[in-house]
Amino acid sequence: MATQLRTHRAAETAGTEHGTVVTLGGWVARTRDMGGVVFFDLRDASGKVQVVADPDSVPGLEELRMEYCVRVVGELRPRPEGTQNHDLETGLVEVHATELEVLSTSETLPFMIDDRFDVDELTRLQYRYLDFRRDGMASNLRARSHATAAIRAALVAQEFLEVETPTLIASTPEGARDMLVPSRLRQGSFYALPQSPQIFKQLLMVGGIDRYFQFARCYRDEDFRSDRQLEFTQLDLEGAFWGEEDVRATVEVAIVAATQAVRDVTPATPFPVFTWQEVMDRYGIDKPDIRFGMELKNLSTVFDGTAFRGFGAALEGGGVVYGINGGALGLSRKGFDELTETAKSHGAAGLVWAVVEDDGSLRSPVAKFLSDEEQAALKSGLDASVGDTLLVVAGPWRTTVEVLGHLRAQLGTPADPDELAYLWVVDFPVFEETADGGLAPAHHPFTQPHSLEDMKERPAVALSHAYDLVLNGTELGSGSVRIHDSETQSEVFDVLGIAPEEAERRFGWFLQALRFGTPPHAGFAFGMDRLVAILVGATSIRDVIPFPKTQRGVDPLTGSPNPVEPDQLDELGLDLSAATKAALSADDA
Amino acid sequence: MATQLRTHRAAETAGTEHGTVVTLGGWVARTRDMGGVVFFDLRDASGKVQVVADPDSVPGLEELRMEYCVRVVGELRPRPEGTQNHDLETGLVEVHATELEVLSTSETLPFMIDDRFDVDELTRLQYRYLDFRRDGMASNLRARSHATAAIRAALVAQEFLEVETPTLIASTPEGARDMLVPSRLRQGSFYALPQSPQIFKQLLMVGGIDRYFQFARCYRDEDFRSDRQLEFTQLDLEGAFWGEEDVRATVEVAIVAATQAVRDVTPATPFPVFTWQEVMDRYGIDKPDIRFGMELKNLSTVFDGTAFRGFGAALEGGGVVYGINGGALGLSRKGFDELTETAKSHGAAGLVWAVVEDDGSLRSPVAKFLSDEEQAALKSGLDASVGDTLLVVAGPWRTTVEVLGHLRAQLGTPADPDELAYLWVVDFPVFEETADGGLAPAHHPFTQPHSLEDMKERPAVALSHAYDLVLNGTELGSGSVRIHDSETQSEVFDVLGIAPEEAERRFGWFLQALRFGTPPHAGFAFGMDRLVAILVGATSIRDVIPFPKTQRGVDPLTGSPNPVEPDQLDELGLDLSAATKAALSADDA
Repeated sequence: MATQLRTHRAAETAGTEHGTVVTLGGWVARTRDMGGVVFFDLRDASGKVQVVADPDSVPGLEELRMEYCVRVVGELRPRPEGTQNHDLETGLVEVHATELEVLSTSETLPFMIDDRFDVDELTRLQYRYLDFRRDGMASNLRARSHATAAIRAALVAQEFLEVETPTLIASTPEGARDMLVPSRLRQGSFYALPQSPQIFKQLLMVGGIDRYFQFARCYRDEDFRSDRQLEFTQLDLEGAFWGEEDVRATVEVAIVAATQAVRDVTPATPFPVFTWQEVMDRYGIDKPDIRFGMELKNLSTVFDGTAFRGFGAALEGGGVVYGINGGALGLSRKGFDELTETAKSHGAAGLVWAVVEDDGSLRSPVAKFLSDEEQAALKSGLDASVGDTLLVVAGPWRTTVEVLGHLRAQLGTPADPDELAYLWVVDFPVFEETADGGLAPAHHPFTQPHSLEDMKERPAVALSHAYDLVLNGTELGSGSVRIHDSETQSEVFDVLGIAPEEAERRFGWFLQALRFGTPPHAGFAFGMDRLVAILVGATSIRDVIPFPKTQRGVDPLTGSPNPVEPDQLDELGLDLSAATKAALSADDA
Repeated sequence: MATQLRTHRAAETAGTEHGTVVTLGGWVARTRDMGGVVFFDLRDASGKVQVVADPDSVPGLEELRMEYCVRVVGELRPRPEGTQNHDLETGLVEVHATELEVLSTSETLPFMIDDRFDVDELTRLQYRYLDFRRDGMASNLRARSHATAAIRAALVAQEFLEVETPTLIASTPEGARDMLVPSRLRQGSFYALPQSPQIFKQLLMVGGIDRYFQFARCYRDEDFRSDRQLEFTQLDLEGAFWGEEDVRATVEVAIVAATQAVRDVTPATPFPVFTWQEVMDRYGIDKPDIRFGMELKNLSTVFDGTAFRGFGAALEGGGVVYGINGGALGLSRKGFDELTETAKSHGAAGLVWAVVEDDGSLRSPVAKFLSDEEQAALKSGLDASVGDTLLVVAGPWRTTVEVLGHLRAQLGTPADPDELAYLWVVDFPVFEETADGGLAPAHHPFTQPHSLEDMKERPAVALSHAYDLVLNGTELGSGSVRIHDSETQSEVFDVLGIAPEEAERRFGWFLQALRFGTPPHAGFAFGMDRLVAILVGATSIRDVIPFPKTQRGVDPLTGSPNPVEPDQLDELGLDLSAATKAALSADDA
């Protein structure tokens, strides 16, 4: 270890005086034998620089292959006129090597260390360490680290304490998505990995910690359908004597810091705030992408008393008629049929479409059922111009706006895909409708309602102090004001249909904690994987996770998960179930 | 949420202008009814301030009890002359309350929120949230957060990237201390929780990440004998093109930052560096507490050719004679017998003790066997004064120094218990002796030896590039320079007795990664729990972990680990073993 491994990093050669003798360490990215002189690019974490050497005086040059790891000693000189590369930071210099040491060789690569070559993801994951050498992944990992550091610095400056909560916690019978860890000391018992630090952060508030944050590893036994991972990281925060607006302001500080760190832009604050009712009514979804318009319009009054039964029946049944202006879609009949199928698959009875012809008339299968006044009002209601396609749905409000929300999301495109549109959605309903038409709590039972009376008397419209943060049509995270007195908590359990004995059984030790002078508190959590993925423009969160699992929960690099020896299981007091044994021996056969 | 929950924190009242109307939120710490006027201390995360109120104009005062959570609005006024408390930051002011709101009440407390009252640890853990309100735990959590933030800032400033490695990894048949997580998607297979991110951080180096760190949650299925936890946090770091001295310098930067954050002192750097050989020889242990002397002295030459068989036989057998000067111990015969038992329990054949009498003679059971010259040389070798107790052990070198190391640790006391004595131990042996006299690798098989030839030819004395960081007699962490070329790696496996097929089976995918141009790299990891515990003066790491488990791996607050429903296990393809079922039904009966 006596030899100094390097004096400079590749990128630093750009700002270093010519004539300096530098020692560099890095990888051979490209070699060119120019007859008597060998050129190669040396790449390290900072960038690349060109190395020039004479095979006669520098032994080992001929043996260099792609991705050999080498140490080079040489003099920094300006590149000759005409050979400069102005696209490269170090493109005006080259290192004239006097010494070359191969630190380690490389086998033939499974793929090129160059983002211009597409590589299938399974291969990338199998050789993740080589994938890290490519600009894309290297830059994603840097972005993630910088975003995390920026958020931390911002929260520490606001006197937040970072507190580590346990990841071996109690499992609950309801924890269908809990990942379990068998206990060796207490056989037959299990820890669960946390789906979030929710209860622990509330206990910190009970304990007077005032301002808490943590980048928390969380676990959910997902089916991997929708770009999720078994383990993920969320920025988790909570504050005492803190209200909803305080939470929003602090989360904005964190998000702005991360955005600046990755994108070098500063989003305008405060972020726009929409009520849940408003986003549903205007965008048909609780996580709208507002980088484009195409807003939903309520056309119910336009068709009040209409002769067209498709609309009339819906309105008479207490429903609504809503439409969007899809713009100049230029769809064929087949295209409209497909849109109609989409609408039906999301619960619509049908989809009415109409195209504004050059003469201002409407081309539509239902045009003949609509009066001139209705056609005029439809066009004006949707601010229609010649060539625009209008899409109209009638039915119950929730279904109608959601169907149009899906069509809007499918048809709309932001003018600037790099734009970042952060927004808040607040005042979520306490309950959401279940598939069978009943009501189920939309949030955890510790969420503060706007009004206990509403919860009891008008559950379908009761609101809670729950709020989401949305970016470009993706939900980044959610939070709420928590209930801080045990009387309200009991009443909320009652309205939610949780009997006192059940509450005691499920949450007993937590309810006990609330009885010792709990401060008002509120908090939030957002997913770092998703935030960073959007900020760097990655299509999957796997591109911002160093070692992700595939959608089947497998790591192609290490082969996890894998079978273990029977005696390892036995030491934990466990056995494979009869069904598993049968399935495994069938596989073997 | 319209009411502002607070305008000031309690401690801020000290620097706020008199006459200001403040809104505070916090806990009632102490109430005194002074006949017509009620005083109480309001405590929040920042500190305490005295509140004064008239029960006639402020309703609710009489109902206040300890630890009620309240909101107080009032005017800040100077305390009357003679009632000021100069020990308290806010002791010159009081808040004259005009409004009082009980935010939540408190049941009778299980213990006082006051560190002066001793509370047994089980109760503290069961009501951990109340324990957080006591100064000791609150201050420990702050210290930990500040230490973590300071280390992060120092490493980020040195361009380290924080990279999150997975916690659901491949299990190995050798992973006896692995905690397992059953896979639901691939039944019969398991993830393991990582004992450290070792292999992943080395893969990051292969991937060109250059400088990595992470506060990593790690897991080890410990027996909890020695103040350990199932999950713990280590600062993990690694660098490419990095040597042993670079690692030490960077770790020192991190440690200094943490020490400054918690203790407000700056340890002198560089920390002293000892070879393993030297600390063993001088302190009889590889993690010495050097805050006191009492160093071991080699007395072998003193007793060369002695007539005393206890020493002579050892020397003739190739052993050594070492001693320490225990200082003025004033032990009785019984005390010496106990020391002798201790020495024997650590492997010594016996312990020779001698006390320097007022006349300079030695009082010792063996004095009569020692010549005058030997007695004089013994005293001079141990720098003895009147009243000192000398302890001498003879036998094989390793046993002898370790026995004296134990006695030294038991008898020695630092003059200043607050002193922090950081040091490095380097050049550990490649192999350590096993109980049966064989040799076993002392570190993981990726550790770079000083010399392959030594490893092969002189294994008992071969050294490795492995190093430890020690603080006050505790090992904080360890690291090494790693092997970076696959040829050396193969040879090392060979010397370690790992056959190529076994290496392939155990480490195949990792060895494959090393074959693609691995840079020289080195790293380190140290335990945050232990560092912070020593910095705050805690006797157990549990006092710096927010929600620790007991020594039986149990959380008395949440009851984890706990049984789960049979169908939860079944969904994972698992069953309790027959033995576990039998044990559980025996418990039920």
